[in-house]
Amino acid sequence: MAESTPRKRPTIEDVARESGVSRGTVSRVLNGGHWVSPDAAAAVEKAIKKTGFRANPHARNLATARANSIAFLLTESHERLFEDPNFSALMRGAAQALAERDLPLVLLMAGSDDEQRRATEFITAGHVDGALLVSSHRGRESFLGELVAAEIPVIACGIPLGYERRIGYVSADDLEGARDMVLYLRGLGRRRVAHIAGPLDTSGGTGRLEGYRLEMGDDFDESLVEEGDYSRTSGERAMRALLERHPDVDAVFAANDLMAAGALDVLHAAGRSVPTDVAVAGFDDAPIATRTSPELTTMRQPFDRIAREMVRMLLEVIDGQPAARLTMPTELVVRGSA
Amino acid sequence: MAESTPRKRPTIEDVARESGVSRGTVSRVLNGGHWVSPDAAAAVEKAIKKTGFRANPHARNLATARANSIAFLLTESHERLFEDPNFSALMRGAAQALAERDLPLVLLMAGSDDEQRRATEFITAGHVDGALLVSSHRGRESFLGELVAAEIPVIACGIPLGYERRIGYVSADDLEGARDMVLYLRGLGRRRVAHIAGPLDTSGGTGRLEGYRLEMGDDFDESLVEEGDYSRTSGERAMRALLERHPDVDAVFAANDLMAAGALDVLHAAGRSVPTDVAVAGFDDAPIATRTSPELTTMRQPFDRIAREMVRMLLEVIDGQPAARLTMPTELVVRGSA
Repeated sequence: MAESTPRKRPTIEDVARESGVSRGTVSRVLNGGHWVSPDAAAAVEKAIKKTGFRANPHARNLATARANSIAFLLTESHERLFEDPNFSALMRGAAQALAERDLPLVLLMAGSDDEQRRATEFITAGHVDGALLVSSHRGRESFLGELVAAEIPVIACGIPLGYERRIGYVSADDLEGARDMVLYLRGLGRRRVAHIAGPLDTSGGTGRLEGYRLEMGDDFDESLVEEGDYSRTSGERAMRALLERHPDVDAVFAANDLMAAGALDVLHAAGRSVPTDVAVAGFDDAPIATRTSPELTTMRQPFDRIAREMVRMLLEVIDGQPAARLTMPTELVVRGSA
Repeated sequence: MAESTPRKRPTIEDVARESGVSRGTVSRVLNGGHWVSPDAAAAVEKAIKKTGFRANPHARNLATARANSIAFLLTESHERLFEDPNFSALMRGAAQALAERDLPLVLLMAGSDDEQRRATEFITAGHVDGALLVSSHRGRESFLGELVAAEIPVIACGIPLGYERRIGYVSADDLEGARDMVLYLRGLGRRRVAHIAGPLDTSGGTGRLEGYRLEMGDDFDESLVEEGDYSRTSGERAMRALLERHPDVDAVFAANDLMAAGALDVLHAAGRSVPTDVAVAGFDDAPIATRTSPELTTMRQPFDRIAREMVRMLLEVIDGQPAARLTMPTELVVRGSA
């Protein structure tokens, strides 16, 4: 039945005005009352009654509005989770940041289309309050689109290509980090600096390649670049191709440490001394960086801080704040390889 | 208000009798109607109305009874998840078995007391329908007790020490597997067979030690046993202690491959040839087993089948069946180290 006298439905802002607290506080009361003083909670509850405010009928009911949990949503294969130490580092950081807020971390694998569909169903059913989206290759657009359409609070790790303006994110400064590394290698007197790029459907892959290109300037030469997929094997393959095309290469900057370690193996097998003949540098400062011989010079990504900031920003989005975008500086770590 | 004429509350059995289907079918209808024919579902719904059956008030409401997801509940530290390849193998197997039923796998870390409390809260809130419990050190009793008390469907991997009769499980045959390995080593003519045991608060640790002890019979000598914690480092430490006490040791059986790999390193460093001087054997057939030199002779655990059976049994328990206990045979894999 249509109402004969349409009246504007009371909003969360009306409740905030009536109770004299912020919109965020109202939101927190609606979502279970965490981090709200008893007085503020009482004022909000009184205002809810007075204004006749009702939560969005599509929203979950008030008593159980919060799942009080966060998904660590990994759009990668099961194998990559265990092979690439960055995921482990991010997951540990996120778990710690959540633990300080007494929230459990829930890992959902969303590598395949089917996994993405099941993850979306699980999240939209309200079993978690939001998701930390880790790794976002291009080609995930439909998945990101569904999360955005379902208004799921999401913060991405790295720039969510294609959704930069609709999903908040925390990213290392890939471009400046890569420039700094190339600057360092050229400062050592290296003339032919090659680049083993990451996958070019990731923001890390494109950002580091762009930094390399900018810093090389007029010396940029496409044939000094090989694309890998962040695996050690792809680093080996790329290094072989680069050595074949440019036997005089005297430095190689890989977009991650695993690929740098693969390059190191190939250089050793080819009888090149590192760093005397060829300087090798990575990116990440992953555990592998101190297990190679020589140890890897690399650009440290602050995974722990990235994870903490992702958690902080996601909880803000869950509380109704607009999504932020944050870029974190990287740090040059000089070891034996360059 | 107490009712003046107490009448027996209709049960699920009453509904089954009235509708002419099994109790399990009624349970499936109550839990969302999966794997139920439309006719059976209609009959059950009619019987529910006629009998006046209402689900347990403590149970979740009918419309949303099923979370349609399963937790992979790991009572280990974050570090162990990424260090011990058995967890990765079990998780992959479970994810595949669940995927065939279109169910997502949800990983929950429950290593610390706080993590266990948060995991229990998440599970009892109904965000998953049950849990695959992976690794159960002793000292987890209060955690297991809470899951049992909350009537959470659980299937454990390995025998849940202290809860053998209350929680179903799938276990490799640790005792017979260890006996087979010792039998094999002695069949090679080895006289002083040492054992690097797993943690003795795990069923794998105690079961394999017991198998070793039984098979050694009168030759059992406590000083030939060292306890490790399944880490490679602990295998190194144990091997050093064994070499010191028994320089004439000519075989060592480690309760997992990581410890066997550690023992191998120490034997090499001590100038012992493997297998000529000392035969080395592991347990698991983990990826590391083919990455050592020589490759490891080991006792294969069928992780993939264990995970599949755990999923199958858990879905049965969720459907109201009693929990089963299943022991799977292991398989001797002979490689270069023994």
